[in-house]
Amino acid sequence: MNETPFPAVAAAIRKTLEGQGFTKLVGAQVVSVDPGAVVMALDRRPDVLQQNGLFHGGVIAYLVDNATTAAAATMIDRADRSVITAEYKINLVAPSKGDRLTCRAEVVKPGRSLTVVEAKVYCRIDGEEKLVAVALATIANLDIKTA
Amino acid sequence: MNETPFPAVAAAIRKTLEGQGFTKLVGAQVVSVDPGAVVMALDRRPDVLQQNGLFHGGVIAYLVDNATTAAAATMIDRADRSVITAEYKINLVAPSKGDRLTCRAEVVKPGRSLTVVEAKVYCRIDGEEKLVAVALATIANLDIKTA
Amino acid sequence: MNETPFPAVAAAIRKTLEGQGFTKLVGAQVVSVDPGAVVMALDRRPDVLQQNGLFHGGVIAYLVDNATTAAAATMIDRADRSVITAEYKINLVAPSKGDRLTCRAEVVKPGRSLTVVEAKVYCRIDGEEKLVAVALATIANLDIKTA
Amino acid sequence: MNETPFPAVAAAIRKTLEGQGFTKLVGAQVVSVDPGAVVMALDRRPDVLQQNGLFHGGVIAYLVDNATTAAAATMIDRADRSVITAEYKINLVAPSKGDRLTCRAEVVKPGRSLTVVEAKVYCRIDGEEKLVAVALATIANLDIKTA
Repeated sequence: MNETPFPAVAAAIRKTLEGQGFTKLVGAQVVSVDPGAVVMALDRRPDVLQQNGLFHGGVIAYLVDNATTAAAATMIDRADRSVITAEYKINLVAPSKGDRLTCRAEVVKPGRSLTVVEAKVYCRIDGEEKLVAVALATIANLDIKTA
Repeated sequence: MNETPFPAVAAAIRKTLEGQGFTKLVGAQVVSVDPGAVVMALDRRPDVLQQNGLFHGGVIAYLVDNATTAAAATMIDRADRSVITAEYKINLVAPSKGDRLTCRAEVVKPGRSLTVVEAKVYCRIDGEEKLVAVALATIANLDIKTA
Repeated sequence: MNETPFPAVAAAIRKTLEGQGFTKLVGAQVVSVDPGAVVMALDRRPDVLQQNGLFHGGVIAYLVDNATTAAAATMIDRADRSVITAEYKINLVAPSKGDRLTCRAEVVKPGRSLTVVEAKVYCRIDGEEKLVAVALATIANLDIKTA
Repeated sequence: MNETPFPAVAAAIRKTLEGQGFTKLVGAQVVSVDPGAVVMALDRRPDVLQQNGLFHGGVIAYLVDNATTAAAATMIDRADRSVITAEYKINLVAPSKGDRLTCRAEVVKPGRSLTVVEAKVYCRIDGEEKLVAVALATIANLDIKTA
């Protein structure tokens, strides 16, 4: 049963993500929130890198964690339900040596209790987006409101 | 062929981890580096949390990423080899609402080209360590020195 | 609330596993069913192998799928609940060139809606058990009886 | 360096898959082998099912294991190299209660030492293909010929 109009759902998701202490620390941006799809991004700066000047794998995982969970949350339109990350797998497939990371998460299969979400992370290197990570996540839907 | 004594290997791993821009930003500590096992930890503060006051899943993933890769690195004793994270899966199994996270990574199976590492993340809640995440990682060994 | 005595729970799990068409085709055995732990095994014969004479990865996955789900089922003691496999990850860590596979699954974290289970698969090679696969699974608990 | 023409590569992969003892036991078919993509299928019969009349999860994993590894093998065009499955994660997203399973595997990122492959498994239910599983696999490329 659809109780809340999507723009209000999207605004609430965006507000939750942007209000997280860790999101502020990392400096990530919510690029877009659409039904079943969320895009987040992060610009390069020294304190999100690892020892070789690449974006840190933990930063990539942070984007995957947040974007996949938020994508699942777009399918939850009732004020009395919420989502939590159950698990995800991430493959780091190329060095992220560029100046901006973009994570695109898309729901593959919504479900009553579990939603499965795919994510791809791209790094802008010399002006071109290159795939640097692929992920597959399971998000649990709860019958309570946690936030 | 063992070319470098372990204390020197461990010191180099610790220095690499502690020198990462993102490790400094997150504020994580390297608790111990032993053959096949690395422990990292992080104390609670507002900017490593999510919206409900729990440690952020991305922080847990950061610890898993670093500790599993470092545990694999302890098996690489030659100065001309290095490791990179190929992939990992992480299950978040309980809310991390305590005051300190500890990630214990242990090599399950070292290999010439791939090393498989397990990790468990505990959160200290009211003085007791509780399991909050379980992970399984694949680390690739390279025949070049990256850092 | 514990409504069914464990021996009856274990007997029902064993009967379900052994009654599966695919279990009969593969020829696997249920070695033991204990609270939170299930062991399954399979002896070598040509039609469970791949092209190099090793146990087929699909056979190893079959054991992991069944043993982890059954281990989660041991935690469900009410007649009106059941389990289904949500997802799992499996690392094949060494060639399974021996004469018997044994998969040991253990619940890491039981939960109301999701149970997380680890599994290790060993192959008996020249009389010694060697680790050949490691897995991490998420099993969903349903409020209905499916079988 | 491309040394072998693709039709010969594809024929060798098909022959390897079809010659596996376990493939014959399961009764799976190789539908197509293209550069970076392999499709396999299996028709319903009682001995590939689980207790509720659905295709067994182990059968789905078998298709994923074989199709993803074969898709990676299509990128290996030299006679002195080969592939082995390093790991995969599989999400079972809907009950496979139809009459035919089809697994479509596609290479996401080929690499010198590791190739990452996605797979989707569909079940034909009442004449329509429905997504029943999603997988993400890491295949290792070896500098030796194993088969």
